[in-house]
Amino acid sequence: MVDKDVTASSLISPRGSAPEIEEGLAFAPKFDAGGLIACVVTDVQTDALLMVAHMNEQALERTLDSGEAWFFSRSRQALWKKGETSGHVLRVAEMRVDCDQDVLWLRVRQAGAGACHTGRRSCFYRAVVRQGPDAPLTLEFRDDERVFDPAKVYGK
Amino acid sequence: MVDKDVTASSLISPRGSAPEIEEGLAFAPKFDAGGLIACVVTDVQTDALLMVAHMNEQALERTLDSGEAWFFSRSRQALWKKGETSGHVLRVAEMRVDCDQDVLWLRVRQAGAGACHTGRRSCFYRAVVRQGPDAPLTLEFRDDERVFDPAKVYGK
Repeated sequence: MVDKDVTASSLISPRGSAPEIEEGLAFAPKFDAGGLIACVVTDVQTDALLMVAHMNEQALERTLDSGEAWFFSRSRQALWKKGETSGHVLRVAEMRVDCDQDVLWLRVRQAGAGACHTGRRSCFYRAVVRQGPDAPLTLEFRDDERVFDPAKVYGK
Repeated sequence: MVDKDVTASSLISPRGSAPEIEEGLAFAPKFDAGGLIACVVTDVQTDALLMVAHMNEQALERTLDSGEAWFFSRSRQALWKKGETSGHVLRVAEMRVDCDQDVLWLRVRQAGAGACHTGRRSCFYRAVVRQGPDAPLTLEFRDDERVFDPAKVYGK
């Protein structure tokens, strides 16, 4: 009889050889020393890069169970459902993995206007610019329109 | 007089407060315990996600100096110019940073057909698929056409 309280571990295959990892059909993700894997999140309709976050096995399992993205917050050291406070959940349309299976890619449909807690559509609203060969690098705002008011949404 | 042998450190500002990091114009990236920062790489013309790699300060500096992407290989623990062997270099059209400045985004023009060492255009050529609630996750090939022959390119 199958244990009903299935853990994420049972969803994941052991790491095999490089050819197995790169060309095989077993999902054998490489978690880092902290048990995390990086997840790139893009909008499935526009292909826009929205954010990058991390999952542990439990976040992965909850994402698979719910169809909505869960992550693990490194700063808070806690499981975190994206949109739990804001309502801006991310419905996962497709999950992919890279060649060496150490990065996930979530293609999502967003509920709500923006993925970034600062109120922008994407977390990547500044470009890195070099003013001169010896000058410190500076940032330039790009695509930085606020699509929601974080003070209202998060009640800060 | 400015030291000509400028190090990447002089290009980078110290980490400030959260509002400074999120809304400021100083580039103050957060490198992890190993001195690395994750870099998402997309095609500037198609917005396709090509790969994810890591930079240390030296790779960042060489990227800025050359306009072509350099990374730091975690498996080989060595600085690495993308395309050094294959010729498939990545010309950086724009570099962005995310809200908390711990991920970089490189928008690139590719020289050569593919970014992945397996011969594909992108490293993300497999989807993660759930066959049943208790079954191990499996992978499905998608967008996995080989655009170059890795045996020929890398001489394996």
